[in-house]
Amino acid sequence: MYESYVIHGCLREYYIDEKGQEHILQFAVEDWWIGDMHSFLTESPSVYNIDALEDTELLQIDKSSLETLYKHVPQFERFFRLKIQNAYIQLQKRVISSMSKPAEERYIEFIEKYPHLEQRLPQHQVASFLGITPEFLSRIRKNLSANRK
Amino acid sequence: MYESYVIHGCLREYYIDEKGQEHILQFAVEDWWIGDMHSFLTESPSVYNIDALEDTELLQIDKSSLETLYKHVPQFERFFRLKIQNAYIQLQKRVISSMSKPAEERYIEFIEKYPHLEQRLPQHQVASFLGITPEFLSRIRKNLSANRK
Repeated sequence: MYESYVIHGCLREYYIDEKGQEHILQFAVEDWWIGDMHSFLTESPSVYNIDALEDTELLQIDKSSLETLYKHVPQFERFFRLKIQNAYIQLQKRVISSMSKPAEERYIEFIEKYPHLEQRLPQHQVASFLGITPEFLSRIRKNLSANRK
Repeated sequence: MYESYVIHGCLREYYIDEKGQEHILQFAVEDWWIGDMHSFLTESPSVYNIDALEDTELLQIDKSSLETLYKHVPQFERFFRLKIQNAYIQLQKRVISSMSKPAEERYIEFIEKYPHLEQRLPQHQVASFLGITPEFLSRIRKNLSANRK
């Protein structure tokens, strides 16, 4: 079990439900971290999957190495606390958006927040992250581009 | 801006959307923490609201006191890192459930995970947490109790 730091490339972490459908939890590109925190902390198998969407280079750290790092360089405790707090804040925003905003607004939020991501990702991956079908995303994109003209 | 620790009572943190509808981000009962991390970290106004659903007693800490605590007792850095990691893991599960599971299953998950909470909360608050209408929750509860007979 590792936490992974992306040197370059692009990955996704996703869940496959009972019907075999994929639901994307997060993407990760350069300078992002990716991993399953529960699995990492408890050293138990993950219920999520991670795969690379591009050629990817990672740095990985296992739990005992990270614990050693915390012990010898307590600033890392702070570093990771702040990282996780930020990730938590973003995830809260996603929960609230998914409850309170229509898909079109959530798509606009996504491309405004991660413009570099939207250009790199296949559309069906973006749709899966937003919890909508690729067909619906395609309709949203058409509407937006028609409105822009 | 404070992070709050619940001695006793029950609170909810929620978002009011443009249409005036409430969406519950989290509840907090005894021994839980509640606050808006973004607002706390950036010392900026919160977009969320917190109110008490019962008579409630809290311990509150502001940012500069918490920073002093981190400085003098580095173990608190670890304590809060672990707290937040756990909160993050739970929030990820909620995101995945909301994308992959029907409301009935999410309701069952909620009562299995927080049996003490479900009994204390008005049903419309539970519905708001699950992102469904109180009428729909009432129908789910009727179905479940019919199936149990």
